[in-house]
Amino acid sequence: MRLERSLFTDENCSIRRTLEIVGERWTLLILREAFYGVRRFDEFARNVGCPRDVLSARLKTLVANDILERIPYREAGHRARHEYRPTAKGRELLPSLLALMEWGDRWAADPAGPAVAVTHGECGEAVEVQLRCAGGHGPLDAADLRIQPGPGAKLAA
Amino acid sequence: MRLERSLFTDENCSIRRTLEIVGERWTLLILREAFYGVRRFDEFARNVGCPRDVLSARLKTLVANDILERIPYREAGHRARHEYRPTAKGRELLPSLLALMEWGDRWAADPAGPAVAVTHGECGEAVEVQLRCAGGHGPLDAADLRIQPGPGAKLAA
Repeated sequence: MRLERSLFTDENCSIRRTLEIVGERWTLLILREAFYGVRRFDEFARNVGCPRDVLSARLKTLVANDILERIPYREAGHRARHEYRPTAKGRELLPSLLALMEWGDRWAADPAGPAVAVTHGECGEAVEVQLRCAGGHGPLDAADLRIQPGPGAKLAA
Repeated sequence: MRLERSLFTDENCSIRRTLEIVGERWTLLILREAFYGVRRFDEFARNVGCPRDVLSARLKTLVANDILERIPYREAGHRARHEYRPTAKGRELLPSLLALMEWGDRWAADPAGPAVAVTHGECGEAVEVQLRCAGGHGPLDAADLRIQPGPGAKLAA
């Protein structure tokens, strides 16, 4: 892609589009909590530490984009409230979060080690994010990849 | 991790720490260009479309965090300038970018398809981001994972 990069617009870049949805401050931390099993507003607020009005706006965006689903519940003696659960579309953001976590574990963790351990439930071994190809090769790194315009590439104006 | 989540602080969460470095608006798009082979200020500015003073600040942060390396060059008849190259630490952010791209390809691409195709240079097959465990199992998804406090987990105040 090196030589022709500047010929193409990034208007329909999938990284840009994903960040337009989940790239706002706090949003990925809210999703992190959802993966940890958090469902309720007060618990998101406490664990993420963001202002309540911001949390409310971010949850709204996540629901509008079908990443979290808003489900009513009522506890005895209280008014109806809502909880938030990841949709199938939302669950597919897990590799993005784990990739960011893995980089932080490696380059920004405390001397004691990572705050969170992610393992394969069945065998107990550590989980990692890998780049692999449909031909069965991998793990791959940057030098192994070829990056080219795809079927949706658009010329810059 | 469900039941005890609220016992632990997220102060040393690796996702939070990674986002503190690369989570500012534009930063991941600047890194995207670096992976596409862009090295020079004007080309970053044109391809990413961010204000020049913001680009300058973001490049400074990336260099300060040893993600990009700033290397002087001089063309005949011009004053010395600098170009920016990913370091080894920076190159390890590739899985995070590709995971975000893959999600966008799947959930936010134009009908024509993804703007960018990432393949394995050697065999030409499509590259994907996978979760795998050290025991050789995978690809795994959210339901296969166990998430627990790690060695660096800290109790909340």
